[in-house]
Amino acid sequence: MAKTMYALDLSKPMEEQAHPGHNRWHPDIPAAFSVDPGTSFRMDCKEWTDGQIENNDSAEDVRKVNLSRVHVLSGPVYVNGAEPGDLLVVDILDIGSHQGYEWGFNGIFAKENGGSFLVDEFPEAQKSIWDFEGIYTTSRHVPGVKFAGLIHPGLIGVAPSMELLQKWNDREQKLIDTDPNRVPALANAPTSESVVLGTLSGAEFDRIAKEGARTVPPRENGGNCDIKNLSKGSRIFFPTFVEGAKLSVGDLHFSQGDGEITFCGGIEMSGWIELKVDIIKGGMEKYKITENPVFQPGPVEPNYSDYLVFQGISVDDRNGQQTYLDANIAFRRACLNAIEYLKTLGYTGEQAYMLLSTAPVEGRINGIVDIPNACCTIAIPTQIFDRDIMPK
Amino acid sequence: MAKTMYALDLSKPMEEQAHPGHNRWHPDIPAAFSVDPGTSFRMDCKEWTDGQIENNDSAEDVRKVNLSRVHVLSGPVYVNGAEPGDLLVVDILDIGSHQGYEWGFNGIFAKENGGSFLVDEFPEAQKSIWDFEGIYTTSRHVPGVKFAGLIHPGLIGVAPSMELLQKWNDREQKLIDTDPNRVPALANAPTSESVVLGTLSGAEFDRIAKEGARTVPPRENGGNCDIKNLSKGSRIFFPTFVEGAKLSVGDLHFSQGDGEITFCGGIEMSGWIELKVDIIKGGMEKYKITENPVFQPGPVEPNYSDYLVFQGISVDDRNGQQTYLDANIAFRRACLNAIEYLKTLGYTGEQAYMLLSTAPVEGRINGIVDIPNACCTIAIPTQIFDRDIMPK
Amino acid sequence: MAKTMYALDLSKPMEEQAHPGHNRWHPDIPAAFSVDPGTSFRMDCKEWTDGQIENNDSAEDVRKVNLSRVHVLSGPVYVNGAEPGDLLVVDILDIGSHQGYEWGFNGIFAKENGGSFLVDEFPEAQKSIWDFEGIYTTSRHVPGVKFAGLIHPGLIGVAPSMELLQKWNDREQKLIDTDPNRVPALANAPTSESVVLGTLSGAEFDRIAKEGARTVPPRENGGNCDIKNLSKGSRIFFPTFVEGAKLSVGDLHFSQGDGEITFCGGIEMSGWIELKVDIIKGGMEKYKITENPVFQPGPVEPNYSDYLVFQGISVDDRNGQQTYLDANIAFRRACLNAIEYLKTLGYTGEQAYMLLSTAPVEGRINGIVDIPNACCTIAIPTQIFDRDIMPK
Amino acid sequence: MAKTMYALDLSKPMEEQAHPGHNRWHPDIPAAFSVDPGTSFRMDCKEWTDGQIENNDSAEDVRKVNLSRVHVLSGPVYVNGAEPGDLLVVDILDIGSHQGYEWGFNGIFAKENGGSFLVDEFPEAQKSIWDFEGIYTTSRHVPGVKFAGLIHPGLIGVAPSMELLQKWNDREQKLIDTDPNRVPALANAPTSESVVLGTLSGAEFDRIAKEGARTVPPRENGGNCDIKNLSKGSRIFFPTFVEGAKLSVGDLHFSQGDGEITFCGGIEMSGWIELKVDIIKGGMEKYKITENPVFQPGPVEPNYSDYLVFQGISVDDRNGQQTYLDANIAFRRACLNAIEYLKTLGYTGEQAYMLLSTAPVEGRINGIVDIPNACCTIAIPTQIFDRDIMPK
Repeated sequence: MAKTMYALDLSKPMEEQAHPGHNRWHPDIPAAFSVDPGTSFRMDCKEWTDGQIENNDSAEDVRKVNLSRVHVLSGPVYVNGAEPGDLLVVDILDIGSHQGYEWGFNGIFAKENGGSFLVDEFPEAQKSIWDFEGIYTTSRHVPGVKFAGLIHPGLIGVAPSMELLQKWNDREQKLIDTDPNRVPALANAPTSESVVLGTLSGAEFDRIAKEGARTVPPRENGGNCDIKNLSKGSRIFFPTFVEGAKLSVGDLHFSQGDGEITFCGGIEMSGWIELKVDIIKGGMEKYKITENPVFQPGPVEPNYSDYLVFQGISVDDRNGQQTYLDANIAFRRACLNAIEYLKTLGYTGEQAYMLLSTAPVEGRINGIVDIPNACCTIAIPTQIFDRDIMPK
Repeated sequence: MAKTMYALDLSKPMEEQAHPGHNRWHPDIPAAFSVDPGTSFRMDCKEWTDGQIENNDSAEDVRKVNLSRVHVLSGPVYVNGAEPGDLLVVDILDIGSHQGYEWGFNGIFAKENGGSFLVDEFPEAQKSIWDFEGIYTTSRHVPGVKFAGLIHPGLIGVAPSMELLQKWNDREQKLIDTDPNRVPALANAPTSESVVLGTLSGAEFDRIAKEGARTVPPRENGGNCDIKNLSKGSRIFFPTFVEGAKLSVGDLHFSQGDGEITFCGGIEMSGWIELKVDIIKGGMEKYKITENPVFQPGPVEPNYSDYLVFQGISVDDRNGQQTYLDANIAFRRACLNAIEYLKTLGYTGEQAYMLLSTAPVEGRINGIVDIPNACCTIAIPTQIFDRDIMPK
Repeated sequence: MAKTMYALDLSKPMEEQAHPGHNRWHPDIPAAFSVDPGTSFRMDCKEWTDGQIENNDSAEDVRKVNLSRVHVLSGPVYVNGAEPGDLLVVDILDIGSHQGYEWGFNGIFAKENGGSFLVDEFPEAQKSIWDFEGIYTTSRHVPGVKFAGLIHPGLIGVAPSMELLQKWNDREQKLIDTDPNRVPALANAPTSESVVLGTLSGAEFDRIAKEGARTVPPRENGGNCDIKNLSKGSRIFFPTFVEGAKLSVGDLHFSQGDGEITFCGGIEMSGWIELKVDIIKGGMEKYKITENPVFQPGPVEPNYSDYLVFQGISVDDRNGQQTYLDANIAFRRACLNAIEYLKTLGYTGEQAYMLLSTAPVEGRINGIVDIPNACCTIAIPTQIFDRDIMPK
Repeated sequence: MAKTMYALDLSKPMEEQAHPGHNRWHPDIPAAFSVDPGTSFRMDCKEWTDGQIENNDSAEDVRKVNLSRVHVLSGPVYVNGAEPGDLLVVDILDIGSHQGYEWGFNGIFAKENGGSFLVDEFPEAQKSIWDFEGIYTTSRHVPGVKFAGLIHPGLIGVAPSMELLQKWNDREQKLIDTDPNRVPALANAPTSESVVLGTLSGAEFDRIAKEGARTVPPRENGGNCDIKNLSKGSRIFFPTFVEGAKLSVGDLHFSQGDGEITFCGGIEMSGWIELKVDIIKGGMEKYKITENPVFQPGPVEPNYSDYLVFQGISVDDRNGQQTYLDANIAFRRACLNAIEYLKTLGYTGEQAYMLLSTAPVEGRINGIVDIPNACCTIAIPTQIFDRDIMPK
């Protein structure tokens, strides 16, 4: 019987919590609590923006969102006995929402504040609210669809070592330096703005706030992978970089489409997660799991069996240019093709875009060798619609 | 009861066949036969290299393969009544091999002759032979695995209009011109070498041989999409660019992993395909299916339910460089991570690479917005192994 | 956001609750609360025996269980506007356990107190305790297995009309009268012993206690169908026999095998259920749903894809007698064959029997016309075992 | 590459074939050919009535069918080295139809000639013809449905020992003797009429014709189990009763609903089957597989995920009588409930009945302990209909 080891008051910002959590990656953020291998436990999680987005019909909050605040994470959890070189085994036993918080949001970020995958086509902020009815969700802003949640943590990861952290910050800064004024930015450098670092304060807080890596990208430690299939029942094998592994989690999604293309993001929610941890001593070398986590999905993914699939190839639609096997362009075109189709059903482009980012759509790299065109697809489950959407 | 409308002698090269087929895209390649909408029919197909690869243990044939010869296609089929602007509806009713030809091959192309997705790591030619036992396949070159085929045509498409063909050749030439001596090449320009164009001969043959687009890349007409889920029972909606649509098919795969990462390719086979065609008049505009085909997968895909999933992020492992959301790099790293893991099970790198290219592995774009890292995954069905492959 | 409309203190017996619930079927049991069509709501449920079974290692409580007490149900819910002739549409939106109650039990009833499907082979009381770890369960009494719950209400139904109730009591009494002293009994007649009838008292209580039908059998109103696939996300269409339909629910199972062969039963648990109700006016006649409910299973059933299947035929193993297409005998033999096999893996007969009653095994009627033998099967998902169980 | 070891001319009756096959079970029927363990091979199979049913719109042939003729089987195959006590491992590698024979039939037997599960409601002969289009089938006699075949041998089994055969004949005769003039019969005794016994003739033919058990019922040797899930990719473990095991197969079904309720039967077809055999020495005792075969279904069953499910309980609808947990009655009522529903969609009762017997419907024993009512269900995949069939 899993105890709640990390409780939050969902009505308060992160720094006012009994256990404040954190929103940067750094090996020296103190653990919120520790557990032995073999232990199951629950943790509360706030939605990733720390309460900036409200359940209403205006996208003003999405437009103005403070992105230095994200992602507010729960943890870190110190796993007794975990050492660098081990594999940390994490079972995602269950995830849910708290009563009164059975809703989530999806948003398209404005071009000048983050942007999204199709930022050129959708430069304005938009928002959709999704209500949960048990395992299902519907949205007053995207009518005619209902689907079962493929609930998952968008972000789950372990602390980097100091060396790894330095590597991250270096390589990302180099990228930023190639076009430092780009809108939207190429990457987010460390910033002391809006930092939360658990119970830290003083000089140590200031140091870590300055050094801590941003949580937006997925990296060698897992992190913000936004993998929808890390759902209930999954088992993840993380490389361990620091003593105690220091596991953190957050950014819960009630559902998400592969790619999370609107950036904000899946159906973002607050809630709780139940985890179990274990250790495989020396597993990094034994299994060569050193660069990224490995996982086994759970057995209760929604079993949709009928899909309509849209293809895209790596010719840039914006200028007709032939790229060399660029999967991003191919996936972009698959998404645009899907949106054009959904518009023939009566959806606006924005609704279609948010639907692709929230429903359990599958994004695939189908061919990556047929020079010069990659072929990617996006597959939409047809059973989520309240009508037959096939061409006749 | 479907009639065989297009029969081949699998022991002879394409040009010696009663109906020679073709290996270039051009609107003026004459149809092999015509059918009315609503008709089911069978066609034989040769494996894509036209018989250059043999069922033996040497990769010499893969190393020396003549790529000007590929892909030898069956057709075109003229669909009576199909006009530009219509959607051509194609049902893939069934696919199979002929008795005596129940085997296929996978190969890694040599760097100097085409290369493959991981060409830097695997620059040498390699080959594996796969034997079919009913719905299953095994390989003497990749022991310890057995899986059910997700049999599909790697290539199925309609003829381009003259304008579309010109667009293809132009944009691809521009890409080639950026690095004309690259090894492997960035794209393949039209070439008259080893061309087959059905029953054509003389000046018309020479003109089309010079203009005809190569069949390697997928394009607006479908073509070499290498989508493993275009399997038995699928329905495809093609845009129509010429009178009669002129449908061609080939490059049958007994199975393929998403990405087809060794380039040669899936499990390449000769065989037959049973199709049914129909027309949705004016469907391109009505459903906005204008840029790429759309499809619905069939209901009999192998139902594997347990996967081990490898992640990759878009930091280039070759130089540590941080890219901006490059899904190719992310997928590359996912593949490399999987190969490293498979090597701990006793496979050579080449075996692991060919396994990822042949087994029904899923390649996904999971996150494409979390700047600066895309996250891609490759998921391997664990039930294909004759032992438990999970980390313990 | 669903409100809890029916709360229980799980530590107290039914009659001491604020809303006492009921354990008989009768049209005149007063509703616990009323809802409008279109409403979602939560209800707490006690496990079916009202707390008689404890989380320990002795089966003494199962042996002595008071079966006049079962099933303690939550409700009835009065659905505003529902009238005889309508269909009551019930969505099972979600089901879960309360913190601190994440466990359940399975038991084999003793021959002299209810018995079970294989009572001749297993006449003694037995018990296994199952611990829940999020979506999974394991048992210290049945080692080596772990499976995802297919959580469902064993019992959900609407109130009978007075006429229907009379019909039930009459036909069941006739059966009892054919062998009134049989052990175990052929059926359970109404009894005033251990009755709970919501807030009723006095003469009305006495009348209904005497008339009320027992809750053990499934009947025209649904009731104790013990259908494992009535799980999260299911929609049920009930015939309506009384004003307000009067929906009741209980007997939650974390999991159950088809047949629920040990009688006690699946993995019996306390917990909560979230429901949504709606009405199809005049639907009974329109859709001819008059004799039994109809339902649509939900999309999140555990996706096990590999089974070992045991057959049985309708020749009675106890005496060698050939029956005429008796599916009970055929299913009995399939179960016995499975138990014999599981014993070769090291399980005791009792463990194997309880495993078949708790894991998501499939019980099928495969052939029911091949005179004189019916063929039934029981299919065990192999992925629930921690080792390979296939014959080699 | 599997060779065809047993070829038939589908236009000729069984006795005129080069290898005549057989239609009775007896240990002394000579093997048609022998194979070594580890061998794959193909066999042709005639549809079970040996060509009595034609592709037309009259049920006259079903009404008059000679049931002494059934089932005409292919084989027996002598497996070298198989001995009593071993397990014979049979892989069903693939199944298909021959070109020109891509159709099948379903029939309801007349009451006076075999009858069927719902003989009281449907006493007259009926027939539906099903055309195959690759993996799909449709019927001009049951419009509005199309489904993927779950192709399987209705009958596959090994030869009984002489002792086992005697046991079968004895126990079945005893049943017949309880009501020898019943229409339809309780069981079929051995009869010399219309017997085929491979190449046998003379006195040995006469002896075996008199002793040979009829093929209609499934028995300890497998036989006519009519299990739809014994489809492509399945592996079966048979107990071995005679030297060489003597495996026979026939009664191919393109599809069948659980129960095969119209008796004639699934979608009956001629075709071919590809098998592979192996032996587990002493496996009967080791795995306690002695009374009935055990199997593992294949991975390519049609993946329908949305069902409408009809329940039935064990109260006899014909007289209102309460039975004691009679699963046949419960399944009967589930079927009748489904038929009543299908009639509201415009089908005749006969069409609905034949649909339930041919489509991949699931027949389940859900509860078999809730005295006095068993609960059975029949689940219809909704995706086989060309319209939405849900109640609204």
